[in-house]
Amino acid sequence: MHPTDSHRLHAHLIGRQGSRGLLNTPALVLDLEMLERNIAAMAAFARDSRIGLRPHSKTHKSPEIARRQIAAGARGNCCAKLGEAEAMVDAGIGGLLITSPVVSAPGIERLMALVARSPDLMVTADHPDNVAALARAAATAGVVLSVVVDIDPGMHRTGVASPEATVALAQQIAAQPSLRFAGVQFYCGRHQHIESYAERKTEITERTAYLKGIVEQLTAGGLKPAIVTGGGTGTHAIDAALGVFTELQVGSYVFMDHQYNICDLRGDGGLPFEQALQIDARVVSANTPGMATIDSGLKSMATEAGAPPILAGVPEGTSFRFAGDEHARITFPEGASGPGIDAVVTLVPPHCDPTVNLYDAYHVVKGHTLVEIWPIAGRGRSR
Amino acid sequence: MHPTDSHRLHAHLIGRQGSRGLLNTPALVLDLEMLERNIAAMAAFARDSRIGLRPHSKTHKSPEIARRQIAAGARGNCCAKLGEAEAMVDAGIGGLLITSPVVSAPGIERLMALVARSPDLMVTADHPDNVAALARAAATAGVVLSVVVDIDPGMHRTGVASPEATVALAQQIAAQPSLRFAGVQFYCGRHQHIESYAERKTEITERTAYLKGIVEQLTAGGLKPAIVTGGGTGTHAIDAALGVFTELQVGSYVFMDHQYNICDLRGDGGLPFEQALQIDARVVSANTPGMATIDSGLKSMATEAGAPPILAGVPEGTSFRFAGDEHARITFPEGASGPGIDAVVTLVPPHCDPTVNLYDAYHVVKGHTLVEIWPIAGRGRSR
Repeated sequence: MHPTDSHRLHAHLIGRQGSRGLLNTPALVLDLEMLERNIAAMAAFARDSRIGLRPHSKTHKSPEIARRQIAAGARGNCCAKLGEAEAMVDAGIGGLLITSPVVSAPGIERLMALVARSPDLMVTADHPDNVAALARAAATAGVVLSVVVDIDPGMHRTGVASPEATVALAQQIAAQPSLRFAGVQFYCGRHQHIESYAERKTEITERTAYLKGIVEQLTAGGLKPAIVTGGGTGTHAIDAALGVFTELQVGSYVFMDHQYNICDLRGDGGLPFEQALQIDARVVSANTPGMATIDSGLKSMATEAGAPPILAGVPEGTSFRFAGDEHARITFPEGASGPGIDAVVTLVPPHCDPTVNLYDAYHVVKGHTLVEIWPIAGRGRSR
Repeated sequence: MHPTDSHRLHAHLIGRQGSRGLLNTPALVLDLEMLERNIAAMAAFARDSRIGLRPHSKTHKSPEIARRQIAAGARGNCCAKLGEAEAMVDAGIGGLLITSPVVSAPGIERLMALVARSPDLMVTADHPDNVAALARAAATAGVVLSVVVDIDPGMHRTGVASPEATVALAQQIAAQPSLRFAGVQFYCGRHQHIESYAERKTEITERTAYLKGIVEQLTAGGLKPAIVTGGGTGTHAIDAALGVFTELQVGSYVFMDHQYNICDLRGDGGLPFEQALQIDARVVSANTPGMATIDSGLKSMATEAGAPPILAGVPEGTSFRFAGDEHARITFPEGASGPGIDAVVTLVPPHCDPTVNLYDAYHVVKGHTLVEIWPIAGRGRSR
């Protein structure tokens, strides 16, 4: 049995020239050469900046991509959820950090089983009750669990609320024989997508001063954090220059998406990364002049970041509008004639992470030829 | 090996009293008694109204639910896409109608293989080129394919554009020995969610007059459609009263969701169906007074229909805001204290169909006890 529906449908097309056009649609397509250039570009940036990388696998959920990132120098991968980490450990990926707290009894039980298989796995925590529960479970399981204190940068999603609370939690961890204080996490999520580099830099500089104070306080108290982890594709250049983080949790750079494509990532107006992730769709109905309907709707891409730009297959100036769960309408500019039924149209995902989460596999292409199919092993593993 | 990640995590909880509280979250939960009452209520309505049901499986993507609908009297199920139909045929479900055109060469090849296994399967078409391609493929495969002409009700998504085009396409189908003209489809998608019953009725009555004229024209030409299929949960009472449809494609009534819960479905202000589909989430961080963070974000529910109402686990008046891919923030009313970490919070999906598409299984409960786990066999089968 093939591991995914995509393998079942498309394995016979691998290596056949021009086979991209024969994919059943909607299909999640990944341009291998662009992906490899993106991975190499971020790896070179990190080497030049003398900073570590622990790329976030919540973007790609793929052991194949994690392996390539690690081969290029990354320390491992971050995982948003325990289920994603299980998928990575199953595939032999090490150096994992779970970036959200694991608080439930069944979750903590699974976490201990995972640490037994992958001893360098780390988890974040932000509450004394959770640390106490982790310590008890690790002692019972006979493992030593590495815990990273998550610090709230002011957006009130997760994290401890003050420098004092950070120090107290680090002390609580360090005092437990079944736990190891591994460092701190500081993730400015909402700052990643500020379009202007200058504005992003001002805000991140201010936030990072707060982090720096906490790191100094911890160090003075004999709890120097071995890792200071955080940052993302939107702030990587700023984070590296400020010199407080020891490693970056960059995720979206591997694929890029429309949200990041409109951000000035390096402050020079350039685009350091390429749009490797695409969706191929097909025209299924074209009975009304000036428009056509394609087979990709709310079930084929995340919708909270707006409509996807259209990369290929339509006249310049064509617009996109969702038309229900299964379809979208493309409208051609005045006077232009558009593609007829069965024509392929290529879209750019508005927001890559939750779009990837809708598909079972990447259709990896070189030019117009399907070269590999990679399962999205962490798809739906949000728990 | 268990068929889903949910089985792996939770099969041992089946039948254990109170086991709903032990589910790893986010979990898609289905209240079995509500589901059964919803199925029975729509079946009784159809019997009383002397109209057929072919419920739409794009909502549930589950052979278990299809089987219950058919046991209650339905003729089969509709499927939005070929991939969903394959999943249903794999599970032994018959009486299928694919409600979107299948236009690509690889899709048509799969369609013929499916008809060979499930001879009563029907597909919609809206273009002469597509009908010609279907006829050629069916002749080559040695099958007779039943084709339903899809008529555009004016929303320009799919369907032929005029009465004349309907008749011409029906004639083209009837003239092919490898095809059978099975009837017409007419789906007023955007009308389903008009909140006021009176407004919805006015619009649907007008649209249905157009459909009635086409049916009369076909009948006069010796092509009386055996089925006239369409309608949905939002218009079922109006459609049945108008007497033009022979069967209804109701989908969301099995679960209900927030979008439909605010619609007056029968014109009497009552709620004929219950909120059977729910999402259980957990508080993972609670360090800021007046708010908490739960483990359900953009990857746990469809977002295009707004925020989910909170059904249980929080003080009255608590609000919800998405906070990224993996999290949401719940904010308590002034002065109220909310749940702490590890507490379970139950949400109502804003829009059921694309939410179901994010999960591998239903956690079927009776009261607070997990009683079954049903795989979502059609999940992600959008092609």
